[in-house]
Amino acid sequence: MGAGPGDPELLTIKALRILRLADVVLHDALVSSDILQLASSRALIVDVGKRRGRKNISQDEINRLLIQFASSGHMVVRLKSGDPLVFGRAGEELDALQQAGIDVEIIPGVTTAVAAAATAQISLTDRRVAQQLLIISAHHAHDKYDDSNLFRMVSPRTTIVVYMPGEYGIVSERLRRAGLDSSTPCLLVSRVSTSEEQLFQTTLGGLPIAPVLPAPCILIVGATVARAVSQQVRAACMNYIPLEDESLLPAQSSDFAG
Amino acid sequence: MGAGPGDPELLTIKALRILRLADVVLHDALVSSDILQLASSRALIVDVGKRRGRKNISQDEINRLLIQFASSGHMVVRLKSGDPLVFGRAGEELDALQQAGIDVEIIPGVTTAVAAAATAQISLTDRRVAQQLLIISAHHAHDKYDDSNLFRMVSPRTTIVVYMPGEYGIVSERLRRAGLDSSTPCLLVSRVSTSEEQLFQTTLGGLPIAPVLPAPCILIVGATVARAVSQQVRAACMNYIPLEDESLLPAQSSDFAG
Repeated sequence: MGAGPGDPELLTIKALRILRLADVVLHDALVSSDILQLASSRALIVDVGKRRGRKNISQDEINRLLIQFASSGHMVVRLKSGDPLVFGRAGEELDALQQAGIDVEIIPGVTTAVAAAATAQISLTDRRVAQQLLIISAHHAHDKYDDSNLFRMVSPRTTIVVYMPGEYGIVSERLRRAGLDSSTPCLLVSRVSTSEEQLFQTTLGGLPIAPVLPAPCILIVGATVARAVSQQVRAACMNYIPLEDESLLPAQSSDFAG
Repeated sequence: MGAGPGDPELLTIKALRILRLADVVLHDALVSSDILQLASSRALIVDVGKRRGRKNISQDEINRLLIQFASSGHMVVRLKSGDPLVFGRAGEELDALQQAGIDVEIIPGVTTAVAAAATAQISLTDRRVAQQLLIISAHHAHDKYDDSNLFRMVSPRTTIVVYMPGEYGIVSERLRRAGLDSSTPCLLVSRVSTSEEQLFQTTLGGLPIAPVLPAPCILIVGATVARAVSQQVRAACMNYIPLEDESLLPAQSSDFAG
């Protein structure tokens, strides 16, 4: 089940209905307590997240837990932030459950990319300036994997969304090496749709000195970022202008006060 | 507002709440009557869709209607299938509304890509076989636009989702010319999450002779399609195997009867 970006109101009606029926909820660290409170009071809630400083739980252990609970007749919800099928490792869990002969239904959610774009009032595609949308993660943007694809895939008429952008300096360098101009507009969106939401607008050149925003955070890169930034975003950006180097801000930065 | 893929239960809780408050609902042709019925009975419902065989309504006319209704003090919902920020032409409407000084809030929805993947139990990214997700439309896959990007962007470790795939033969040819193998798995998903949902699994080589499924339809191309196809999908596919040329079916096609 996709929990959506954070705001409980961005759960689907179906997700809410099923969450209320669940016997067991296995959730990632990024799922908020506001959402977990929507589960039945009799449900067993298990945090299988990997970010809370405690001993890492492996993917194999999560798979085993899912199978154990389901095999003993419980209705299990595996709750993931955003949508489970976009950087949610759902493939591995689905394979394990299929091999164990367990029935699965996937309830899609609002992905973080579209929620972040909604907050910023940015259309991710736009027939005038962005004919395609490329979604990658920092694992890809960094050098853990073969990056020849990234070089091939980047183009000015593509909106690029980077999930879990990691070190901004590395992402910036690699996207510029892949051919994007330093002036390409960038938007960081952290904890979208929650009370801790933060947005920071910069350029690919300014990204390395951008403030590191708390996870979950995504980076949107491309011409659409510049087109439609709303007053709302400008106001939010106000808090995060890195005063050390204002020359790197986009030309319209003086509008931020408006 | 994103209406999600079709099932009213895949609306977000927020979308349902706001839809019930709207004075005016301007909707695309692809939004189902089941969803429109959720609006308040006093709301004015206007179909601004472009597919019903009547005189085309232009984007400018839609922009004008939005501004007219909103300027006269009505709370207007602009309801789009899926998510409005992915191939929804939201950019143009946002620009027009911004210029007219009208307050806008965007309510994200479940995009068709993730809903289709959920039905088919396919993870769109998978660190084992698909490190990125590329979302394009037929306008891009066909030759109306410069296609040099497409050639650059396609790779075996990318899941490609084609919105509104148009003529399958053209899409297939172009993706193969861009370097994908004829054996690359493909899945067509039509009217996902509705009672008219249809799925058809084939390969890039078999795509040109696939049955043309009703809009809205999307095409998913890549290794993840082969990995996780469920019994459910296999059963659904049964109805659509093009018997003329069984040699083009994936090797496991005999399992479809299981």
